[in-house]
Amino acid sequence: MKKLINEPEDVVDEMLDGMVEAHDSLRRLDGNEVIVRDGAPINGKVGIVSGGGSGHEPTHAGFVGHGMLDGAAAGEIFTSPTADQLSEMVQECDGGEGVLCVVKNYEGDVMNFDTAADMAGMEGADVEQVVVNDDVAVEDSLYTSGRRGVCGTILVHKVAGAKAAAGGDLEEVAGVAEKVIDNVGTMGTALTSCVTPEKGEPTFDLGEEEIELGIGIHGEPGTERVDHMPADEITDRLTEAVLEDLDLDSGTEVVTIVNGMGGTPLSELYVVNRRLQELMDDHDLDVWDQWVGDYMTSLDMMGCSITVCAVDDEIKELLSAPAETPALTVSE
Amino acid sequence: MKKLINEPEDVVDEMLDGMVEAHDSLRRLDGNEVIVRDGAPINGKVGIVSGGGSGHEPTHAGFVGHGMLDGAAAGEIFTSPTADQLSEMVQECDGGEGVLCVVKNYEGDVMNFDTAADMAGMEGADVEQVVVNDDVAVEDSLYTSGRRGVCGTILVHKVAGAKAAAGGDLEEVAGVAEKVIDNVGTMGTALTSCVTPEKGEPTFDLGEEEIELGIGIHGEPGTERVDHMPADEITDRLTEAVLEDLDLDSGTEVVTIVNGMGGTPLSELYVVNRRLQELMDDHDLDVWDQWVGDYMTSLDMMGCSITVCAVDDEIKELLSAPAETPALTVSE
Repeated sequence: MKKLINEPEDVVDEMLDGMVEAHDSLRRLDGNEVIVRDGAPINGKVGIVSGGGSGHEPTHAGFVGHGMLDGAAAGEIFTSPTADQLSEMVQECDGGEGVLCVVKNYEGDVMNFDTAADMAGMEGADVEQVVVNDDVAVEDSLYTSGRRGVCGTILVHKVAGAKAAAGGDLEEVAGVAEKVIDNVGTMGTALTSCVTPEKGEPTFDLGEEEIELGIGIHGEPGTERVDHMPADEITDRLTEAVLEDLDLDSGTEVVTIVNGMGGTPLSELYVVNRRLQELMDDHDLDVWDQWVGDYMTSLDMMGCSITVCAVDDEIKELLSAPAETPALTVSE
Repeated sequence: MKKLINEPEDVVDEMLDGMVEAHDSLRRLDGNEVIVRDGAPINGKVGIVSGGGSGHEPTHAGFVGHGMLDGAAAGEIFTSPTADQLSEMVQECDGGEGVLCVVKNYEGDVMNFDTAADMAGMEGADVEQVVVNDDVAVEDSLYTSGRRGVCGTILVHKVAGAKAAAGGDLEEVAGVAEKVIDNVGTMGTALTSCVTPEKGEPTFDLGEEEIELGIGIHGEPGTERVDHMPADEITDRLTEAVLEDLDLDSGTEVVTIVNGMGGTPLSELYVVNRRLQELMDDHDLDVWDQWVGDYMTSLDMMGCSITVCAVDDEIKELLSAPAETPALTVSE
């Protein structure tokens, strides 16, 4: 399988270098696969950090900047960052008001963020952690106890980042992050497997006319393999699973995300969004905002995920607040 | 080949519907595959429009909005919009100061925009046309006399849109568009073929260990097929071809774009950008800004293109001016 890379073991390092070259607003910590906001730590502001295995770009470093993350740690492809790496990031992003770690629910990530919080705590940092587990497909999975953290994480970044930028304290920032986590659900599908640089061939086998529903972002198994279906039927299946999990009252205001898995053209994501919005109407949900694009990818996997998040006035205000990052800009 | 679509003949129609659903700032013309800015025409402003075959998303409709395009016409996949379609768009975007059509150099596009300009002219619109031909790979090609128009087109949208937003008249707006066209070069590579919805299989055959340099955005042949190479060598080949064509003086200020072809993960584009910036240094070029992302795609093709554009103070000011579109936001 062909990729635009040099040596597989250099992909993350070279990607991060190419990224800080492209964006003056980002700085890479010396000798560490961590990206921070230029100017971090911001004194008097709660620091917001995240991180995880690479291969999900623009997650997480693409969301570093004003109004979102102060720091993002990049593990090797589909591999958790180390506790040392995370601890250095936390301390680098602590402007005296503490640091919130936004963690996707994978065992390695949770364990290493826990250790990093202890290490940074010993150095005097006040650290809180929220764990995102929005994937409604499966309880427990390869790499995960409980539900996996996937695309809903980006909404947590946005809301926590905005609350911190507005002067919220650590408890308040963690509170709005938890509110999003309590109200968001996601389910994904794969049309093709991702291919890791290391292995150079598909992580899992999928027939020419077969797709997998409920797929994870590392190619972990989903809920079922089915014959390939038209986009509308796929959208129905994913959306119904999310809505069944969220069990929203009629008239609830929501944000929807159609997220590309990395190898799917934008045109197809809009085709999915068209059907998704019909379903929101059918369910009498009040769509306040719609996102369509690549937010939480799985290397070159073809497919998409659908996220629905119920929002109240506080969350809407935080989602509308200005943000300036490589992958998401919200104007004043 | 699996895609997230319904019937192949409905892809463009459904994509456009999903797009206007997602973006309140866009409006679709009734019964026409044309997207315009909500509020178009803007009275007293030169209208800027573009269009071409679909399959290159976010081009062009993703660049409709404040500071860029007033309208974008979507043909069927890799097929020019009709003259009727274009003429309706031009008239819908004419706020009394005339309309500039930004056309990629493909025979069908040029012919149909010519006819549309005549038709709109008979209805009283003042219409000018610029033709973008930034692909340095080949003179003449399938669908094209002369060089093809590719990713450099996005810079033309940005600069012309900013000049129009600043109150430039039709001649001035066309002038800055031509200045970009005179100073921009692009070359692309394919690691895999695109797959059109209609055909459902690769447009061209490429061996497992083979890539094509100088590829067009519809899978038209490039300059040569070579063995797959590391990203740095591919970047060298593309960049050297562009720089040889542009023949820039040492110290020239430039904007660079690493553009994904649709199926390539963002991580790989940053790996390419890292090497591209080393080459800019080697050539003593002064990089004023760097863009990395999917701007001018070719459906699900894996690969990238590299664009270099020399900029002066006027062009820099226009590139920095605010823009608010689905695919590009520049904050105040």
